[in-house]
Amino acid sequence: MIQQLIHLLDWFGIFVFSATGALVASRKEMDLVGFALLGSVTGIGGGTIRDLILGVQPIFWVEQPAYLVACIIISTATFFFAHILHHRYRLLLWLDAVGLALFAVTGSSSALAHGASPVIAVAMGVASASFGGIIRDILGGGSPIILRQEIYITAALAGALVYVLLSRAGIHEDVTIFLGFLAAFGLRAMGLYWGLSLPRYRALKDQDDA
Amino acid sequence: MIQQLIHLLDWFGIFVFSATGALVASRKEMDLVGFALLGSVTGIGGGTIRDLILGVQPIFWVEQPAYLVACIIISTATFFFAHILHHRYRLLLWLDAVGLALFAVTGSSSALAHGASPVIAVAMGVASASFGGIIRDILGGGSPIILRQEIYITAALAGALVYVLLSRAGIHEDVTIFLGFLAAFGLRAMGLYWGLSLPRYRALKDQDDA
Amino acid sequence: MIQQLIHLLDWFGIFVFSATGALVASRKEMDLVGFALLGSVTGIGGGTIRDLILGVQPIFWVEQPAYLVACIIISTATFFFAHILHHRYRLLLWLDAVGLALFAVTGSSSALAHGASPVIAVAMGVASASFGGIIRDILGGGSPIILRQEIYITAALAGALVYVLLSRAGIHEDVTIFLGFLAAFGLRAMGLYWGLSLPRYRALKDQDDA
Repeated sequence: MIQQLIHLLDWFGIFVFSATGALVASRKEMDLVGFALLGSVTGIGGGTIRDLILGVQPIFWVEQPAYLVACIIISTATFFFAHILHHRYRLLLWLDAVGLALFAVTGSSSALAHGASPVIAVAMGVASASFGGIIRDILGGGSPIILRQEIYITAALAGALVYVLLSRAGIHEDVTIFLGFLAAFGLRAMGLYWGLSLPRYRALKDQDDA
Repeated sequence: MIQQLIHLLDWFGIFVFSATGALVASRKEMDLVGFALLGSVTGIGGGTIRDLILGVQPIFWVEQPAYLVACIIISTATFFFAHILHHRYRLLLWLDAVGLALFAVTGSSSALAHGASPVIAVAMGVASASFGGIIRDILGGGSPIILRQEIYITAALAGALVYVLLSRAGIHEDVTIFLGFLAAFGLRAMGLYWGLSLPRYRALKDQDDA
Repeated sequence: MIQQLIHLLDWFGIFVFSATGALVASRKEMDLVGFALLGSVTGIGGGTIRDLILGVQPIFWVEQPAYLVACIIISTATFFFAHILHHRYRLLLWLDAVGLALFAVTGSSSALAHGASPVIAVAMGVASASFGGIIRDILGGGSPIILRQEIYITAALAGALVYVLLSRAGIHEDVTIFLGFLAAFGLRAMGLYWGLSLPRYRALKDQDDA
């Protein structure tokens, strides 16, 4: 039951991340196949790195190519319908936020299911949540989203931490999933909506950077 | 026999991709060891990602270091002879096209040989054909070639699709290899020669990108 | 005994590379969690790629999460103390040089211990020494350090070559470690201190780059 819920959320995360990859492709005015490539790499990239690092074989989408096919369908649909949207970049950021929060939880959950220790599970939640977007931004020729000023990686970390800690504390899985998602999405949403950011490192005026 | 042909084409693909890596190094005026690094990463990068994703161990060039040695020799030769060339960037693009077409076929073939499903085999053809060049362009500090306007990823996809579909249809392997290569190289050549491109996504004039 | 020395040097390399990642984060004025991410990826990135390519499972820091925790602690400390430093970028380059030299040796050593051939061991030394820094520079939105003019990859190659050749020649391990480190650090230090570089490729005046 719970495993099915995690599975469902994982699918949903792949959908929204694919859409963000396709939206980056639309900003770069790529062709249909470019959309499919960027959408797929973004949708399954984070999970691929997670599986490689955990030594999970076969990689999830090699075992179940339906994941890849779904990414291609979503990206293709975005190619034809993105022109309807009036605020593509804003939408991209919000979809990315949903994907980030979903993968922070499902990435951690998947790591725990493969026997990883809590520290590694949190790291895998953060990696699943962030690397798809990082690869998307680098392939898209832009600046990685992690360099933006508002809360980003912190949100993924919070979601993964809440999920793993509550899971280990024996709280019911339904609740931990919900609270983990809420922690990540809530923080990222505050970043997007109010521009909230954590204290950032500030160089001293007289600090020589050479 | 056929396995040997695939093997030969794979070697040839590694040669030409190494040369493109070394040509990028020449554009960045790197030293001899820089040439060797960029040539090697480009020559064996796509196949390394393919092997990692398929869970093939040992990775092809770890099993047979001759692949790596060949990349180093080609890159070194490029260091000494690239000044003879008068149209380095043009040559780079055409060599890249040959490598792309070869790897679209051999990458798919290698995936099928390791028991991958057709969808995954096509994906591995595209990944083998494109990721070496993508890594080359990112390490070389340039814009990834996939962002160029003319047909690129589409050519890799066409080659991989033709090869995998015809193979599954039971067509003689000689023919499928040839037609797969032709599909990929022909499309990419049309892109390079006539600047042919697929319809690209166009933002509406009044579309807000913020 | 020797294995413990290699282990110790590996830890030290991870420390200094983490610090360089955190210093890049400070240049980008990231928040605390950004420091932890960039510091960790830089500290354990090169070794992760080495383990993936050699098929070593579990990856070293998945087996021993203390490595990851150490990276996080170092990065966090850098967040609070980097403002004391007056020459952050200079320090970054020198720490990077120490990490490069350490990983050239320990990366090669680890590959030999996993049964890799000498050619592959040298390649793994170079990969361990350089890929952490490459990922750091790409995620940090900057130009990869391998594109800098002075000796860099050459130093890693020299260290790995000296270590592997002397090891195979049966020289006492203490000595080979020391000489390998010295070769790599010495060359890189000459590059940093005197701007020493190998002959670089120079395009001809009349060479057409299009």
